[in-house]
Amino acid sequence: MCTRAALRTACQSLLPAGVAAFFHAAVLVGAACAQATPAIRGFAPARVAAQRELEETLKRVPHPAQAEKHLRALTSEPHMAGTEGGRRVAVYIRDQMRSFGLEAELVSYRVLLPHPVEVSLQLTAPEKKKLATPEEPFQADRDTSNPRAVMGFNGYSPSGDVTAPVVYANYGLPEDYKRLAELGVSAEGKIVLVRYGQCFRGVKVKVAEENKAAAVIIFSDPADDGYAAGDPYPRGPFRPPSGIQRGSVYYGFVYPGDPLTPGEAATENAKRIPAGQAQNLPRIPAMPINWRDAQEILSRMEGPRVPREWQGGVPVTYHTGPGPATARIRLKMDFQLRTIWDVVGKLPGTSDDEWVVMGNHHDAWVFGAVDPSSGTAAMLETARALGELARGGWKPRRTILLCAWDAEEFGLIGSTEWVEQHRSELQRKAVAYVNLDSAVSGSAFGSSAAPSLRELVRDAAREVSDPKTGRSVYDVWRERSQRGEGRRRATAGADPAPLQAGEPQLGVLGSGSDFTPFFHHAGIPSLDLGFSGEYGVYHALYDNFFWMKKFGDPDFTYHAAASRLAGILLLRLSESDVLPLDYAAYATEIERYVRELELTAGASGKGRLNLKPVSEGAAAMLAAAGHAAAAMNSAAVDREAALRINRALVTVEQELLSPQGLVGRPWYKHTIYAPGTYTGYAAVLLPGIREAVDRGDWETAQREAGVVAEALHRAAARLAQVR
Amino acid sequence: MCTRAALRTACQSLLPAGVAAFFHAAVLVGAACAQATPAIRGFAPARVAAQRELEETLKRVPHPAQAEKHLRALTSEPHMAGTEGGRRVAVYIRDQMRSFGLEAELVSYRVLLPHPVEVSLQLTAPEKKKLATPEEPFQADRDTSNPRAVMGFNGYSPSGDVTAPVVYANYGLPEDYKRLAELGVSAEGKIVLVRYGQCFRGVKVKVAEENKAAAVIIFSDPADDGYAAGDPYPRGPFRPPSGIQRGSVYYGFVYPGDPLTPGEAATENAKRIPAGQAQNLPRIPAMPINWRDAQEILSRMEGPRVPREWQGGVPVTYHTGPGPATARIRLKMDFQLRTIWDVVGKLPGTSDDEWVVMGNHHDAWVFGAVDPSSGTAAMLETARALGELARGGWKPRRTILLCAWDAEEFGLIGSTEWVEQHRSELQRKAVAYVNLDSAVSGSAFGSSAAPSLRELVRDAAREVSDPKTGRSVYDVWRERSQRGEGRRRATAGADPAPLQAGEPQLGVLGSGSDFTPFFHHAGIPSLDLGFSGEYGVYHALYDNFFWMKKFGDPDFTYHAAASRLAGILLLRLSESDVLPLDYAAYATEIERYVRELELTAGASGKGRLNLKPVSEGAAAMLAAAGHAAAAMNSAAVDREAALRINRALVTVEQELLSPQGLVGRPWYKHTIYAPGTYTGYAAVLLPGIREAVDRGDWETAQREAGVVAEALHRAAARLAQVR
Repeated sequence: MCTRAALRTACQSLLPAGVAAFFHAAVLVGAACAQATPAIRGFAPARVAAQRELEETLKRVPHPAQAEKHLRALTSEPHMAGTEGGRRVAVYIRDQMRSFGLEAELVSYRVLLPHPVEVSLQLTAPEKKKLATPEEPFQADRDTSNPRAVMGFNGYSPSGDVTAPVVYANYGLPEDYKRLAELGVSAEGKIVLVRYGQCFRGVKVKVAEENKAAAVIIFSDPADDGYAAGDPYPRGPFRPPSGIQRGSVYYGFVYPGDPLTPGEAATENAKRIPAGQAQNLPRIPAMPINWRDAQEILSRMEGPRVPREWQGGVPVTYHTGPGPATARIRLKMDFQLRTIWDVVGKLPGTSDDEWVVMGNHHDAWVFGAVDPSSGTAAMLETARALGELARGGWKPRRTILLCAWDAEEFGLIGSTEWVEQHRSELQRKAVAYVNLDSAVSGSAFGSSAAPSLRELVRDAAREVSDPKTGRSVYDVWRERSQRGEGRRRATAGADPAPLQAGEPQLGVLGSGSDFTPFFHHAGIPSLDLGFSGEYGVYHALYDNFFWMKKFGDPDFTYHAAASRLAGILLLRLSESDVLPLDYAAYATEIERYVRELELTAGASGKGRLNLKPVSEGAAAMLAAAGHAAAAMNSAAVDREAALRINRALVTVEQELLSPQGLVGRPWYKHTIYAPGTYTGYAAVLLPGIREAVDRGDWETAQREAGVVAEALHRAAARLAQVR
Repeated sequence: MCTRAALRTACQSLLPAGVAAFFHAAVLVGAACAQATPAIRGFAPARVAAQRELEETLKRVPHPAQAEKHLRALTSEPHMAGTEGGRRVAVYIRDQMRSFGLEAELVSYRVLLPHPVEVSLQLTAPEKKKLATPEEPFQADRDTSNPRAVMGFNGYSPSGDVTAPVVYANYGLPEDYKRLAELGVSAEGKIVLVRYGQCFRGVKVKVAEENKAAAVIIFSDPADDGYAAGDPYPRGPFRPPSGIQRGSVYYGFVYPGDPLTPGEAATENAKRIPAGQAQNLPRIPAMPINWRDAQEILSRMEGPRVPREWQGGVPVTYHTGPGPATARIRLKMDFQLRTIWDVVGKLPGTSDDEWVVMGNHHDAWVFGAVDPSSGTAAMLETARALGELARGGWKPRRTILLCAWDAEEFGLIGSTEWVEQHRSELQRKAVAYVNLDSAVSGSAFGSSAAPSLRELVRDAAREVSDPKTGRSVYDVWRERSQRGEGRRRATAGADPAPLQAGEPQLGVLGSGSDFTPFFHHAGIPSLDLGFSGEYGVYHALYDNFFWMKKFGDPDFTYHAAASRLAGILLLRLSESDVLPLDYAAYATEIERYVRELELTAGASGKGRLNLKPVSEGAAAMLAAAGHAAAAMNSAAVDREAALRINRALVTVEQELLSPQGLVGRPWYKHTIYAPGTYTGYAAVLLPGIREAVDRGDWETAQREAGVVAEALHRAAARLAQVR
């Protein structure tokens, strides 16, 4: 079949997006039409049919019942990092991989992990009342009665014993304290009560610290993920009144990973800094509570009534305080060097010079059915499928690594330590990193990715059926995008890229999951994907197998779909002749960031900031990428040229790193993206320049513009090697 | 003093708004500047100084302590219409007026009033629970323990005993049922649970009836007037969880007043229609509940989750039903002909040919400190001030009537019966009607008025000090208007007129208080005014003296200010040489309504509706009003001319009535304004045409356009007599 439409699809998919405008494709059309089947990005026409057959074989393997079995096994016990349960899950994953025919090993690190011994909260005035009430068990869900579920706590909060009047500070962002000051309310020496949302929780503690607060209490406002969003568990998928969001409050925007070994792997004998010098540890106590407890506090607050948009769904009128509600927080945290266990599975390629890496963490705050185990269950089915292909005599071209990280919840530790340990090898070999965290909480597909990988994600989504509709995941995703229902990936938390005409929307990579060390530190092209839905039990006791069976994916078909998608991505990345990395799209995207920055900085920075070197760099990169794309296209049939081109392509993203890293947080080396210092999850674009502009520090902004421009010219030079 | 600024003010205030563009004012400027004091609209220059002295004398009388004394007396007992308490309040008002030197009489009518005997609500499934819980007493407010407070009920609900599954229907508007139908939910045979707000409560019952519901439960959503708006009573001024909004559900948009004597006064021997024929009585049971009870029901509902904007502040996820919550409503209403007592106070003028009427109702659902007694307390202080002037030998030019209406809460009954009884005399004599309902619930001045009276309200507001700031009420009001904080008058509930440049905003007259029969039925120029604030206890047990002392007007200075404002208005209306009625502004306003209607009807009615006769009528009225304004201005010094002009002016508004009234509700005779059939309070502009357009009934719309055009030409002809 070579209809006009099929032809158009075939030829367009050979051309990276953004290049079509540069190069007429007359010759390519002829080449594509010589093939019986539509082309695949990066594959020589002669190899397309075989690849399609391989993909079809792979897609037949993942099975909902198997995914369900994995999920039940992974979530049968609480498995927080540093516990026996955590190790048991790692062993299960390793053993499953081995049973599928993969090589698989545990890799351990010794990292500073706090486990909570006491987390207590008492209202001391205007009356005494014991708070920090636990999450209630429900009969229909026996996991909720498990005595080993850890109490609600915030990871890396220091121990402490603080008694002070309470001040309510909305989401705890800098502008919230500014508003408080306008109302005549100071947080100094107070316990600030803030609600979850709008930013990473560590940011709330950092900003509280900057405002001289004595401690922080964080509650889940039912306006955000409770009754006002939808029916609370167990009736519906949202947070019940007793539900607590656990979570780390480490300052991951400074650096993730083990606090004591920044930039270095936390091996047994690694050199460690004293905890007092760790720049990513909060200095004031913080704890999370449910909204029942928040109501006990809020109903006893006076002072100004809050601005209307600060009022949430706790059924009392919110006041800022301070007091009269006065609280005592007592936290005893057992900080120790503990052993964590990554799992690294491997399917060796015909050459081990190139790696394709996929991963997800395996540790959970409690049971973690969505977060993270849905991704692990999907990945295990992908592993099983790859194993079946291998059993049939197939061997991947590039080595495939399937990793299960430990201690992500505490601070992306397992992945960060492994990346730090293998950084130079990864930078030589790793073609891409695919992250599968929280792969299923519903049916709405979403992805965040380096711009170079976006077309690949769209391609893969075309190949997999959406279980509910039977149409392609791509079609359903595109329709939702066009209706403005593009769902961000919670783990990436990034601002979506603007909608390309007719194309479904992808987000940019912020932070919040294990792609962070790969992308922001090592410059490995990365992506994150999954199916999302109504999910209000994040980091609660209720994110468990029963929740998934009742709400998230009752028949586990989306787990199977995620597994197929992951499999297609792996096979395209591992088998392609020319790496399917679209740097024309990337450069186009960067040009847009530069224009936006010019607009933002234009008003305040007029005459004080010259962004011309940056836009020239972006233009140089775009030009080089355009030429590279043409070369990539014709190289697919020429093995020698392809090898040379791939050697260049594999390091283009790394050229966008700056050796010295960002100001004040040198671990973050990417010049185009970083998690925002005051967002924590969401990405800041051109962060070195932009954060300096936000501070009004024009000298630094200009210097950072130089850094970015250099990086862009380096990337352009690397792309020129592709020609 | 005759500075440029003072001059400008003086000359502008002589010219009705809207006329400045038509007539150059060179001569008038000269005339105004001959005066030592700024001019007053409608007064001959020679009389201005005396009028100012009179006003200053009047303003010195009203006293906060006296207003407080009145308010305590008026609210010492529950005084619902048809009860002993109701009569006692009427007697108090009469006696006070007499003690001030006014003539005052009780005027009684015999009207159909239901008093509740039983209002019970039981949840019958999925479990049994007794609801209809009463409002809780608070220690700090001894009135809340008064055993004579009437239970929560909806006036004119029929008796009934209904058991049915519950359906939640948001605000109970037609579009809400449409949305339900889209969700596959029908209200037929069900008990609909709706929340207060967005429209008059009788509309909710009417629409439920149209949708074949079996009964209606109306609850106060805390998102609207409870904790989400501000602190609940007794901590703050908003509705506590047990607070119930009582209120009539009669179909006042068909006709107000005694259901059995539409258009006729309900005197002892009046001809009465059978209750079964009364078109303003609902046919299905209705009852109000507090949000605690609503929570018991809403937490037991299933069916689709509601659209996001239907979710309110009751801390459960709202579902539409039907059921499983099933309720039994048992209502026993004692419908009887009962005696109600108006009070008519009188200060006879030198001529009894012209009347100035002021009024407020005296009946309350319970104590009614804001609604209505704050207005009565203010009016009594105005009466005392007028009495003092009279004691000094002064006699008003025009007769001043001060009225206290009974049974307003049930259906504007006392005022409607009195207007029906005295309609022809009123239409000959009444210069204007000033309504003082709920005059104080805070400090934000607001007013709704016939366009002819707007400038007079602004003038009066310039003469009275705002107690908090010491500046004029006008200045504070204008600043709030310009900040977009124009507060509508709750009793009028009307859409605000668009902001004239630099002028504070007034609303248009809808319905909901006693100006209705004067304005909509008899065509008397009317206005309504008061000071509003945070007031969440409307029609609850908590609208009482303690609420007022703590929140509404703790030192009663705004009561005194309202009294002064009312006094100024009366003195200007009673003493002016030429009536201060601005028909150029009115005609300008009507031209705007016609343009808006042309836009609305233009799309759907193209070629089917010709509005040219209407716009020609408006243009004719504007032209005549312009000429009249010039004549009015020069007539102030010519007593003979003024008398002739006033005789014409007093009936211009009546020319805007149509003898046959509106389609389906002939009691409403005004062609420019009516309470909307589906709003109940808020006004519809050019209602005859607009409601036909909304129904797509083009034939009626065209006929009504003819009716309006005729009315406008009649008004123009009447104004031509002013020349």
